[in-house]
Amino acid sequence: MIKNTTICAISTATGSGGIAVIRVSGNKAFAICDKIFRAKTKNKTISKQQAYTIQFGEIIDNNEIVDEVLISVFKNPNSYTGEDTVEISCHGSVYIQQKILELLIKNGVELAKAGEFTQRAFFNGKLDLAQAEGVADLIASETKASHKLAMQQMKGGFSERLNNLRDLLIHFVSLIELENDFAEEDVQFADRKQLNGIIDDVDVLITDLIKSFSYGNAIKNGVPVAIVGRPNAGKSTLLNALLDDDRAIVSEIPGTTRDTIEELLNINGIQFRFIDTAGLRKTSDDIEKIGVAKAIEKVFKSSIYIYLFDINKLSVKDIEEDLKELNNDIPRLIVANKTDLVNKDKISSFAKNNCYFISAKKNESVELIKEALFDNINKNINVSNILVSNTRHYEALLKTQKSIHETKDGIQNEMPSDLIALDIRNAINSIGEITGEISNDEVLGNIFSRFCIGK
Amino acid sequence: MIKNTTICAISTATGSGGIAVIRVSGNKAFAICDKIFRAKTKNKTISKQQAYTIQFGEIIDNNEIVDEVLISVFKNPNSYTGEDTVEISCHGSVYIQQKILELLIKNGVELAKAGEFTQRAFFNGKLDLAQAEGVADLIASETKASHKLAMQQMKGGFSERLNNLRDLLIHFVSLIELENDFAEEDVQFADRKQLNGIIDDVDVLITDLIKSFSYGNAIKNGVPVAIVGRPNAGKSTLLNALLDDDRAIVSEIPGTTRDTIEELLNINGIQFRFIDTAGLRKTSDDIEKIGVAKAIEKVFKSSIYIYLFDINKLSVKDIEEDLKELNNDIPRLIVANKTDLVNKDKISSFAKNNCYFISAKKNESVELIKEALFDNINKNINVSNILVSNTRHYEALLKTQKSIHETKDGIQNEMPSDLIALDIRNAINSIGEITGEISNDEVLGNIFSRFCIGK
Repeated sequence: MIKNTTICAISTATGSGGIAVIRVSGNKAFAICDKIFRAKTKNKTISKQQAYTIQFGEIIDNNEIVDEVLISVFKNPNSYTGEDTVEISCHGSVYIQQKILELLIKNGVELAKAGEFTQRAFFNGKLDLAQAEGVADLIASETKASHKLAMQQMKGGFSERLNNLRDLLIHFVSLIELENDFAEEDVQFADRKQLNGIIDDVDVLITDLIKSFSYGNAIKNGVPVAIVGRPNAGKSTLLNALLDDDRAIVSEIPGTTRDTIEELLNINGIQFRFIDTAGLRKTSDDIEKIGVAKAIEKVFKSSIYIYLFDINKLSVKDIEEDLKELNNDIPRLIVANKTDLVNKDKISSFAKNNCYFISAKKNESVELIKEALFDNINKNINVSNILVSNTRHYEALLKTQKSIHETKDGIQNEMPSDLIALDIRNAINSIGEITGEISNDEVLGNIFSRFCIGK
Repeated sequence: MIKNTTICAISTATGSGGIAVIRVSGNKAFAICDKIFRAKTKNKTISKQQAYTIQFGEIIDNNEIVDEVLISVFKNPNSYTGEDTVEISCHGSVYIQQKILELLIKNGVELAKAGEFTQRAFFNGKLDLAQAEGVADLIASETKASHKLAMQQMKGGFSERLNNLRDLLIHFVSLIELENDFAEEDVQFADRKQLNGIIDDVDVLITDLIKSFSYGNAIKNGVPVAIVGRPNAGKSTLLNALLDDDRAIVSEIPGTTRDTIEELLNINGIQFRFIDTAGLRKTSDDIEKIGVAKAIEKVFKSSIYIYLFDINKLSVKDIEEDLKELNNDIPRLIVANKTDLVNKDKISSFAKNNCYFISAKKNESVELIKEALFDNINKNINVSNILVSNTRHYEALLKTQKSIHETKDGIQNEMPSDLIALDIRNAINSIGEITGEISNDEVLGNIFSRFCIGK
């Protein structure tokens, strides 16, 4: 799978800038770059340059100076790709970038495909597949939380957890396969209790990872928060109050602004995605019933929801009735709105319900809602160190879990040990898909085509 | 003028990419970067890192990993700015770029202003002002010719020419100022013939440079080409034929396309800017006369113009009449159109007029026009090695020329030598404005604010 070609690409962002970096990687990187580079130091070729050093000189095309550049040299295996690598740091004009690429191609370098440098790093064992995906996520991440998640994945935190699981399963296999060798004698060498213990441990760990996906995915793509309540509870006013304050926070992270949708809100580095819903109300009208059902559906799909009510209109009993209709498993904030119009006695009657008391219109105590949202999600980030954020990983973990459960059933039903071993092998393979021990061209193609060119 | 602060900026193009480079320059660059960098090699600080080497490690904020980075070190005076400089090569996510900048600022680094790195290079004598302007032009250049021009300026070719001029003038001053010391004795030590010889040499050189501006400026901003002729000569068809073929050529240079105006055409690396004009015609209508006058005005402003006529309709005499109305100093191509509708005898009757014969409609021989345009301009590029392309330089050269002419008059009119010396000093100062020996904050502000941030 490792290719013999030498590849190049512009690795910095597209367009004109002060400087740009062109990366060249492969076994001919030094020889080819020497053809177009004239060092300031006499007779100093790139091939003779030490690893991890920089040299000043000129890129030359038929004795014409294309640019003054800095050349950084990295030697196999101590480079990002694991191959000999040259990084050309040139002036950032689009013309120069293009001209140097053309020169490299003319001298036999191939234009790198999207993610090809990272793909080579993977093939050369510099990082596993989950880590490689972490690199792409890292570059795409725009918030503190998604950045943290990607960094952990890139640094191998998730892979380490998977390798621990894998080691447990391999230990299990080694125990059970010993029995296979003596299958005709119908003996059980392996202590079933010990096997059950291992498989239970694995099951807990896998289940934790699977559970973490709802948070991992939410952090990566924005935590969905439904705002639900009866008509005129003040849902839109609350949304505006939440977002208005937001401008300053969003603007701290350039780049997010360009694609900002009104409903996105970054609270202390976690991105929230607010979903307004139609009002809840008792109705006999069939069409209105559909609207209410949809509102409830949105609540079901959110990571946390806000139940908002007008403190002047609803009684504690009304609220309890509404909440009964909503899912109880999903964390929620119960928020009493329009406190500016109410007397203190009424407020105290709701106090035991763990309400937040706000006036969205006057922007009073709206900050408390933000804090509560942040705390609720942040707590879940910190409970589990590893959060699964990648759908491919999530699906592989579900497959692993399925095999683990089949293994458990097998043990319980006293199935032959070779069948049990088969289930466990499936589980090991599913985990291997995540880290790339098991992979195929199609999967790799899908993964690396998501990268930008030059990485 | 040299500041004691340490500055930083993202030096690569704006936005997300595979990698980004953050440049830090100033006397605290190493010490501050050490605060946020954790090297992979134990105890290896940036301060201890050798010049022109690279080190792998992590950027750390309160024990959280912001990114894995490469650190390049350049030591005063052997860096772009002439100061201690660190280049941080990080993953190109907008979040990471911003986060590292924030960290640097938190630790006392200031955000660099546009062009501030180059401005420091200028203050530290790494390049003169004309060279610094060459850097900005180089980054902005989008064609082969404008790139070549900027490269020459950045490498100091133009500055060298100016320094030669300056040396001649200083020699002149040294001769004439000797007389000033003996002014009361009313003697003429300096050989007037020698002085005249020097001043004539300078005049020729300055005049050459001033003349070159029309080409230098055209190459930088696109060579203006007016297309003129009587109504229905086929001007628009010719323009379309020229541009149609163009698509392939333009697309070779990415980046030009985004701002492409239909009338821009890159021929072999020179950008041409076509200007369509109203038709020429004899008329007694006052309003139409204005249109014709405007067409002729556009011809006057172009570097070269195309006079186009319908070979089936006009006689040689008609053409001569038209050409009389047009400026004779500006190079032109006389182009006979619609040759597909005419017999060969008619063509031969025009042959002695150095015509190009084409059919714009059938796209026949249109390529000849392109070649002729290219050759005409390219010839002028090669005649003079140095082309002045900067309006500021052009204006300073005009001022220099004025002082030179006043000097000449002074010698001719046997003015006192101290007055002659004054004129020559003015000339030297005007040249000094170009290279920045004479400068003020306002001029510098104007120049460097044109740069991008990070350069």
